[in-house]
Formats: sequence, C-alpha cells, structure tokens
Amino acid sequence: MNFCSDNTAGVSPEILDALAKANVDTAMPYGADALTKKVEQRFNDLFECETSVYLVTTGTAANALALGAISPSYGSIYCHKDAHINCDECGAPEFYTSGAKLVTLPGPNGKLHQGEVEAALSATDDAVHHTQPAAISISQASEAGTVYGPGEIHHLSHVAKEYGLYLHMDGARFANALNTLGCSPADMTWKAGVDVLSFGSTKNGTMNAEAVVFFNDKIGKSIGYKRKRAGQLQSKMRFIAAQWDAYLENDLWLKNAAHANTMAQKLVKGLEGIAGCELYYPVEANEIFISMPELILQKLESAGYAFYRWHDAHCPVIRLVTSFNTNEKDVDGFIQTALNAQTE
Amino acid sequence: MNFCSDNTAGVSPEILDALAKANVDTAMPYGADALTKKVEQRFNDLFECETSVYLVTTGTAANALALGAISPSYGSIYCHKDAHINCDECGAPEFYTSGAKLVTLPGPNGKLHQGEVEAALSATDDAVHHTQPAAISISQASEAGTVYGPGEIHHLSHVAKEYGLYLHMDGARFANALNTLGCSPADMTWKAGVDVLSFGSTKNGTMNAEAVVFFNDKIGKSIGYKRKRAGQLQSKMRFIAAQWDAYLENDLWLKNAAHANTMAQKLVKGLEGIAGCELYYPVEANEIFISMPELILQKLESAGYAFYRWHDAHCPVIRLVTSFNTNEKDVDGFIQTALNAQTE
Amino acid sequence: MNFCSDNTAGVSPEILDALAKANVDTAMPYGADALTKKVEQRFNDLFECETSVYLVTTGTAANALALGAISPSYGSIYCHKDAHINCDECGAPEFYTSGAKLVTLPGPNGKLHQGEVEAALSATDDAVHHTQPAAISISQASEAGTVYGPGEIHHLSHVAKEYGLYLHMDGARFANALNTLGCSPADMTWKAGVDVLSFGSTKNGTMNAEAVVFFNDKIGKSIGYKRKRAGQLQSKMRFIAAQWDAYLENDLWLKNAAHANTMAQKLVKGLEGIAGCELYYPVEANEIFISMPELILQKLESAGYAFYRWHDAHCPVIRLVTSFNTNEKDVDGFIQTALNAQTE
Amino acid sequence: MNFCSDNTAGVSPEILDALAKANVDTAMPYGADALTKKVEQRFNDLFECETSVYLVTTGTAANALALGAISPSYGSIYCHKDAHINCDECGAPEFYTSGAKLVTLPGPNGKLHQGEVEAALSATDDAVHHTQPAAISISQASEAGTVYGPGEIHHLSHVAKEYGLYLHMDGARFANALNTLGCSPADMTWKAGVDVLSFGSTKNGTMNAEAVVFFNDKIGKSIGYKRKRAGQLQSKMRFIAAQWDAYLENDLWLKNAAHANTMAQKLVKGLEGIAGCELYYPVEANEIFISMPELILQKLESAGYAFYRWHDAHCPVIRLVTSFNTNEKDVDGFIQTALNAQTE
Repeated sequence: MNFCSDNTAGVSPEILDALAKANVDTAMPYGADALTKKVEQRFNDLFECETSVYLVTTGTAANALALGAISPSYGSIYCHKDAHINCDECGAPEFYTSGAKLVTLPGPNGKLHQGEVEAALSATDDAVHHTQPAAISISQASEAGTVYGPGEIHHLSHVAKEYGLYLHMDGARFANALNTLGCSPADMTWKAGVDVLSFGSTKNGTMNAEAVVFFNDKIGKSIGYKRKRAGQLQSKMRFIAAQWDAYLENDLWLKNAAHANTMAQKLVKGLEGIAGCELYYPVEANEIFISMPELILQKLESAGYAFYRWHDAHCPVIRLVTSFNTNEKDVDGFIQTALNAQTE
Repeated sequence: MNFCSDNTAGVSPEILDALAKANVDTAMPYGADALTKKVEQRFNDLFECETSVYLVTTGTAANALALGAISPSYGSIYCHKDAHINCDECGAPEFYTSGAKLVTLPGPNGKLHQGEVEAALSATDDAVHHTQPAAISISQASEAGTVYGPGEIHHLSHVAKEYGLYLHMDGARFANALNTLGCSPADMTWKAGVDVLSFGSTKNGTMNAEAVVFFNDKIGKSIGYKRKRAGQLQSKMRFIAAQWDAYLENDLWLKNAAHANTMAQKLVKGLEGIAGCELYYPVEANEIFISMPELILQKLESAGYAFYRWHDAHCPVIRLVTSFNTNEKDVDGFIQTALNAQTE
Repeated sequence: MNFCSDNTAGVSPEILDALAKANVDTAMPYGADALTKKVEQRFNDLFECETSVYLVTTGTAANALALGAISPSYGSIYCHKDAHINCDECGAPEFYTSGAKLVTLPGPNGKLHQGEVEAALSATDDAVHHTQPAAISISQASEAGTVYGPGEIHHLSHVAKEYGLYLHMDGARFANALNTLGCSPADMTWKAGVDVLSFGSTKNGTMNAEAVVFFNDKIGKSIGYKRKRAGQLQSKMRFIAAQWDAYLENDLWLKNAAHANTMAQKLVKGLEGIAGCELYYPVEANEIFISMPELILQKLESAGYAFYRWHDAHCPVIRLVTSFNTNEKDVDGFIQTALNAQTE
Repeated sequence: MNFCSDNTAGVSPEILDALAKANVDTAMPYGADALTKKVEQRFNDLFECETSVYLVTTGTAANALALGAISPSYGSIYCHKDAHINCDECGAPEFYTSGAKLVTLPGPNGKLHQGEVEAALSATDDAVHHTQPAAISISQASEAGTVYGPGEIHHLSHVAKEYGLYLHMDGARFANALNTLGCSPADMTWKAGVDVLSFGSTKNGTMNAEAVVFFNDKIGKSIGYKRKRAGQLQSKMRFIAAQWDAYLENDLWLKNAAHANTMAQKLVKGLEGIAGCELYYPVEANEIFISMPELILQKLESAGYAFYRWHDAHCPVIRLVTSFNTNEKDVDGFIQTALNAQTE
C-alpha cells in the first residue's frame, strides 16, 4: 500500500534469478566479463545503432557522469526548474562537471518548453564573463509524470544543435515513457536528437542498475576514467550486467512498465470522479499528481496508504507512484477508501 | 583456476539468499528502511562503540568519501607509495577532496613506516605556500598482502595525533587482516587510533557492498550530503544492507576470510620449496607475491591458471590472490603444475 | 565621454604616488610587509572592530573566496537573479566552492527581497537530496545601481540567522553606496549583520585592489590557504597594500565616490525632463538605467558617447556609469546632445 | 641587504613611469584596451610566432591556468620533486585541474632527467584505474637555480611527444635563464618543444605582472573562460599590459636579468674561496645554494643580511637570491662579512 515512489518496490523475480545464474565460476572484474560484453551488444541492438555504454548503480551517478561528459566547468546546462538534476541530487551535476551552472527554466507540465529555451539561449553571448551554454537536459518521463513526444524532443534538439549544445535525457523512468508513446527506443532518443541517455532500470524492477548510453561518438571518450575516479566502476560488474541482461530479455522491462502505467491509469479513473479531486498534471506515465481534500487524505493515511504530500497548500496536492509490482488490490482499496471518505 | 584477484569470485550463497529474503514488501528508499537500521546497529555491536555508517558500492567510493571527510582541499594525505588510493583509483581521492595532495612515502613490505611518516611531517610548516597535513591513510591488509599489527597502527596514530592528523584505514581486505591478527575489530581500528575505516566486503563474498565507518564523532557530519552528490546513495539500499546483514551473521565474513588465508598459506608452502621460487613479500593475508622462473610461469599459463605478472623483470614476480571460494583442488593443481614444470 | 563602466577610468593620482612611495627598499613578499600590516590595522579602525583582511586583485576573486569560506560544496547561496556573482563571473563562485549552487530569486530594483528569501528558505529541508542553504549574498550597491538601507540589510541578516546562514556583501561599489546612505562602514556591514564583505576599490580609483573582509571570527580561518591555491596571493603585496593605504587616507575613497554619485544625479536631472526618457531603476549610486528613444541614442553614439545598451527592446534601456573622474563637461555634453536630438 | 628572494625587490623605475603614462583617458576594461593588444603583438614578435597570451598577476595563477589547459581532471603531470608547482603553490595545480595528480620525480640539480621521465612513463598504461599521463612541467630556471639547455628541453619534449603529452615551462625566472643561455626566447621555448609557458616578470622588476603564453594552437581555447572564473581577469588590465610593454621595451627585462645574474656570479666568486663554503648546486642564474659554516651564518645574520636557511643540517645550506636591483655594495659587504667571520 505504498505509493510513495517506484523505488519502494523490490525487484522482479527474473532479476534475482539472473543474479543466481551469474554466480558461477570466476569472472574478470570491472566490466571485463562476458556478461557485460553481452549487455553492451544488447544496447546496440535495442537502440539500433552503435552505443557506448557505462553501467553504474544510481541515477544520480548516471546523470552526473553524462553531464560531466557534455559540459565544461564553465558551461551552463539548461533544464526545467523542477528537474531532478536541479532539485534532488544535492549538486551532483555541479560536482561531476567541476562547477557548471544549471540554468533553470519554467515550462508547463514539468517539461522544458522550446520557446523558453530559445529565449534563454538567444540572450547569451560568448563573452568570458558568462558561463557558456553547453547542454540541454530533459527528463523522460518528467518529474511531473508527463512525457515528451518525439516531436517535442526533436524541437528541443533542433534548438540545441542551432546553438551548438548537446541534448541529455534523464531516463529514470524511460520504460514508462516508452510504454506511453509506443514508439521505439531509437525514436525516443537519438533519432529525435538525444546525444546521451541516463537509462534507468532500478525504478522498474532491478536492484540499483543504471546506465549511461552515448549515441554521439564525439562525446564520452573519457568517461571510463571519470567513472572510475567517481567510485562508480563496480568491481563485480557481472552482477550489474546480469540484471540488465534479464531486464531486457523477453521484454521484461516493457511488461513491468506497462503494468505500472496501467495501474496509474486505473487510479486516475477511480479518483477523477471524486468531488474535490483534481489532477495537477496530465498523467502520462506512472506518476499521479492530484489535489485531494484534506479529509480524504487523512482517511487514506489512517488506512495505511503511504504517499508524499507534494504541496501542502489549503488544497493539498499529493503524488502517487505506481510500479511494476503495484498490487491491483491496493489500487482498488485506495480508490474505495477515498470514495468512502467522501461519502461519510 | 583464477588467481588474478579475489574480486573474480562470485558471492557466497548466503548473500544471494539474503537478497531474496529482502525482496518482500515495499521499503523506503535511500537507507530509510529497516534493514539498513539493523545493519547500522550491527556495526555498533561489532566495533563495540557508537559508529556512523555509510553504505556504498565500491571501495574507491568508500576511500574517497572517507578522505573527503578528513582532508580539506588544501590538505595533504600521507600514504604508502604503492597505496591503492594513490595508484589504482584514477584520482578519486583528489576528486572527492576537491584537489588535496597525496604525499607518497616509501616503506618496507608495502606498509607505511612510522619513521618515514615522522620525517615527512617534521619537514612541514603552516605557511600558506604548502598544502597542510591532514591525514594518514593505511591499507589493512596492505597492497603487498602484509598486515599491520595493532602496535604498528597505534604508533602511526600516535604520530597522526601529534601533528593533528586523522588516521584512515583502507580495509578492502579487512577480514583477511583480522583473521591473521586474531584480535577484535575494535582492537584493529579505533582502539589503535583509527578515525575512519573503509570497510570492504566485496572481495570477501558480497556483491558490491562496502561501507565507510566513522569512529570519531567529530568527523563525517556532512558525509550524507557528499555521498548523495557523489551519486553513491543507493536507491534500493535494502539490498546493500541485506548483504551486510548476512555477511556479519554467523561469522560468515570470518569464515570466508579464514578460507582465503588458509588457501594462501597452502600455496606458499607448496611453492616455497621449488627452486627459483622466492617470496617477494611476507604472506600475511590472502595475497602472494612471489618470483618464479619464466619457464614455470609459462607452463602454469598454458595449463589455464590465471594470475597477474606484477614486475616483468628477468626474474618475474607474480601475484596470486585467493578468495573465500578458492577451490583447494586448484591450489593443489597449481602447485603440482609448478613442480612438474621444474622437473621437466 | 565613456559611460560604459566605472572601470574604464584610470586611477587617482594619489594611488600612483603611493606606488612610487612604496617602491623603496626591499620588503618581504606575500603580505609579510609593513604596509600590509598597516592596512590591516586601517581596516580594523575603519570598521571599528577586529577584522580579518585578505587582499586580492579582482572583485570576482574577492566574491568567490568569500563564498568559498561560507558555503560547503553541497551548499546553496541565495542571491538576486541579476547578481554579479550569478551573471558575470563565469561560474567563479561554483569554482571556488567546489560546486555549490546559486539559487536565484527575483526582487524589485535589483535587490533581494526579504519575503522572497524567506519563502525560498521556508521550502527547504535537511534531506540529503537537496543542497543545503549556506549563505545569502547581496550587492551594495546592487547591479541595478540601487542601495540597501541598513534596515533592509538587517532584515535579510535576520532571515539568514534564523536559518543558520551567513550573509555576504558584494561591495564592488561599497563607497558609492556608503556615500548615498551617509552612515558608517560599520553600520552598513557587521552592525547590520554582514559576516563577510567583498570590499572593492578598483571601480573607485585604484588599480586592481580588492579585499575580502571577515567580520565574523568563526569563518575565514582557512582562506589564507585557499587564496594561495587560487593564485590570488600577490608576490609583491606591498603594491596592493599601498593602494589601499592611499585610498583610505584623507577620505580619498569617500571623495571619489561622492563625485561619481554627484555626476550620476546631475545626469539624471538633465535627462529626466526629456520626452521618452524614463528611469528604469531609481538612481541611488553611480549607475543609471534609463530608457531612451532610439533616435536620441544614435545621436549620442555618433557624437562619441559610449555606454552599454542593456535591453535592446523597442524602447531600449541603456546603462550609464559615472566614476571618480567623470568629467562634468562630458555630463553636460551628454545631456545637451540628448536635448538637441529631441528637438531636431 | 635582503637576499631572501628576488620578489623582495621593488620595481624598475620604467615600470612606474609606464603606469603613470597609461593613466590617461578611459580604456575598455578586461583586456579590451589598446595596450593589451599592443602587448599581445609584442609577444608574437618576441617569440617569432603566433602566440595566445593571457595576462595574470601571479606566477601561481599562470602555472595553474597553464596546467589546467593541458591536463584533464584524471591526468598526471610529471615534474621534479622540488618543483614550485608541487611544493610551493598550496595545491593550485590540483585546484585548477579539478584534481589532477602531480607525479614527482628525482633528478640531479633540481632538473627533470630524461631517463627518469622515460622510466616513469614507460610504466604507465591506459587502464581506467590509473590517472593518465598528460603533461611534463619544467622550471626554467629551476628551483635549484640551474638552467636547462635547449638540448635538454628538446630531449624532454621528445619524450613528451612520444607519449602524447604536452610540455609546460614555468618561467618565473625566464629572463635569468635566457641571459645565461644567450639564445633567443623562441630557441628556449617552442623551438625546443615547449607548448605553453608561464612567463614571469614580477621577480625581475615588475609589479605582479605574469603571463600564460600558448605556442600550440591546439590548446588554450577555453582559457579565457577559465581565467575569468578563477578571478584572474583584471578589470583595469591596461595597468598590467603597460608593465609588460615597458618590461620588453629597450630590453629592460634582459638588462635586469643580466644584472641579477652578474651579482650572483660575483657572490659565488667571493664565497667559493672561503673554507667550509661549498656550492650545493651549480649557479646558473640568480640563485645560489651554498653550504656555509654556522658561525659565518650567524655573523652574517647579526650584520643584517637576510636569507633563507634551506636545509638546516649540521652543515647548513642557505639560499641567496639576487635581483635586478641588488646593490653591488651589499654583495661586497656580504662577502667581506663572511671573510671576516672566517678569520676571526
């Protein structure tokens, strides 16, 4: 009954099986093992292109390494004001870039807006007094649970190219966004102009397994050294690779994301009809931001449902996150409890 | 038949069981779960004192976070010239300390020598032109596979205190050293003057599970923020905590280390008698540095035994590392192959 | 006829005299000379308290060193969105703090507004995911040429203390602000709650002579080392000290600032009456932001008057800066040219 | 009577004159002035090639900026163990490179030895565990007061090129070395393979005026931004440029260096004959390292002669530095006092 976040879930049984299966023989450490090689090839197949892949264990590390590869210390990185990289990583991008500046922009529904980005960039120049535009970073799905269409990504990448910037995608919930769009991983990334992707799997059923994926062969050359000096090169790498292997095998990742998204839609449908309940953002992946009357929230909380209160204004907004193993019964129970509270 | 490193081994079955057992229900992320709390208490019990514990996934991260907590950017950290932090972490300490300087010192058998440290420190002053002595770092067991006795540690800590420095211990092979000494974890650390420990378990049977342990409550206050901004705060922390829990349960860690050390001694005994084979360092844990005739090495290599050639001089020195799951048959086979090569 | 900036001016004759007078005998380098000691005492007298003074050559260095002394790498520094530290120092604060985050806030007339700061701070918490509020930074005079009254500073320092933050003042135009307020240097700084001041003199008649002044003896302990490693410890320091000595002698600094401010007011009076000319900010020091018709601007430019176009909208806003040696004839000429343009 | 260092001297009268002459009219700040342009051209003429020049105020800043331009954060910089960048800049190179590692090597007479450098480099590989060789840095004249011949520089640059490294020259005493060699500035730098030079003038008669000079157009592209964010871009740059202009005009710099070197040789000749006095290093520029009996040193000190005691062993070694304005009478007096002390 925990809707706080998708990382409160455990892992898919397939992931545990893969760990057990990988636990045979000896294997060379630090990624020089067969499973890591296999996974690197899997990424090429999945994205239908040559990629450079760097496995890490946290999304913060993936984002920060990616940004460190595309921004100099005197760079500016343009992101939404609510972006995870700006709000929730305690300055990791600043640390890994040796002090670059995140320039935060407004934008509806938690998404960067092409117009805002262009306005910001058109006001820049190459004077030494100013940090220099280096990258645009978007989150797919966004912190607001919304999803950029390939066209929107393409527009942003067009602006990026016009100003000589790289485009980074924070894909902590990549699978959920992909499920929504129904397009290919390539369509949602390099074909739309993304240069580097933080590809998350932890929130969707694995155990601390993330990846930085470079599509642009002009960047990322030195990331092997930077990953090591960041303490992000895992010694027994095969156990990270094994998870990725199982995650991508038999579409486990897509099935997991589909379930999470379905549960989110079910929640939305159940709650929308309740008086005083109003969506704060469109629900396009597995996160729901919804305002609900305080009375209902208290009933839900006493019934044991866990969630975050996002804005605690007079009409509070809460966040509900579903995951690959969200129990449908919990969704039904949540809705029923809210309905009952309303009618009491 | 892989003697390259103890991190070529997989994990103990108990570790996989613990992961499976932890995979129930939801759990709050980022260390706010019950297993992490339990493990923190375990560390207090193990070390017989109040500790502050920060779980991470690599030894490099543990070392770098620890050093970042005890050295300012303008600090100097004194370590053996062959120390892992100096030679094999691609500058991670420099990164996490924002540019501190490692001052490397010679010392017999891969260990820092009190006299060398005192000589170096006595030549320092507080002039602004010079980085300021901040910490001494030792590895237990050392990179040479040797072990500091509690008395030696105490002497170094005495020097550290005299000059106002902190003492850090890189315990990537902490269990192996402890098995050799037969003393308590407290005796080998804070009772001997260690302020902060990088406590490794990965090389001894877990899956990328390391810890920074502070014994001195004056330091480490800000490490939570620094761990996060380093991308080292694991989202599904319970799966790191579960490993530590199982590792310390029923003395698994001590049994694993005892096996590795026993296998190392068996190898030593078997190889010492062979003509042309000579130990390079005393074997005090699970690493053997030994010079062997080229002819024997080639026979071993063609027989499928894997190991690192350390110095490739006219009489080459190789490194053999045993682990918790080194097969006794492989040890016997290695010795027999060497013996046969000799007599051919 | 250059109104671009006060740093287009040369230096006061007294400054050149002081350099010549200091050029006798040998003197110990790096601040161990008698003149530097004398200047340190001067600062104590001037501010009526014990200060710690660090001379540097640029305002950017002064600001960045000051901020590096009061914010950890995981800190946030609250400043106006137009602050020099945010817009015009190419990320120097990020560099010197090892990657802290500048949180930019709106505020009328280029000044931080207590309410905005409180709102921002009240939304923070001590979770490890978030950079931690460390400091508030204000510019006196501000980038908009406005001046904080001692009461306003006191209010901001009150908020700072409530949240455990330090208060930094960027005093690149300290003398100009002081002239406007007519209060004592102590009233405008530590008595109003300022912990550390970037005290500028370059824009007001010296040759690259700036200072970081700490009023709070809990901070700044390590800045000597940080100044050195930043390459900001001048070898022949006596020549920086000599300038400060002459600058503060016989109120040269106050006279210089008074002239600059008087010229600014004269310009304002002359331009205000012209149709289409409208002040953009109140003029409270030596900077004027004023919108003027394009036609007038072109006449002024062809007549040889130099200034920056600040916003180039359909009704452009320009910035005019006066200095210690702005020629009254140039002011008169500027006004007359604008008047003539209007009536053509 | 101060032989502590050449930076205890003041400045040449020509430098003061140049400052006064530059103090007319307004000039655009931050290097956009005519004098800076003129000086940039002067450097091209002086070095007989296209250079990129960045003026700064300290040698530490020049060195650190130069090294930051040629080493990534994960780089290693090879230098003599006594190099100023390693011993006397409080970690500035580490700061400006975001944490690169200085690898210190022994070498006779304070100079890097080709063989030692080759040995160190031949032991490196491109594994991610190791910082990557990026640059060799030499000091000309060295910290020991010795001078590399063009051939020696060429040999080191040959090694650098072989391993893909850049060659940096710390020229804090560039003029003194040039005077000794009698070759052209080009011969001593880019023609011998130097990629970037820290060109000092402060120790030889100016007032905190240093320069970074790039000869290799593949590097230094971003140094303008890095200089700014380091707080090293001077606002009233014309006053730094004016000094360089006067310094290079009419061979002032060469005359100044010749005087310093001549005074050093005079000292050497006078002291060599005294019993118990023995040169520690060959004297090839304006620094003398000489062991002298304690009794003589005490007489010199009580007579008011100032110098640094370098090694305070049972036979102490002192350092004597002469400068552009060392008084010949002081040299004679020093020698006479030493002679008298001996014969008492």
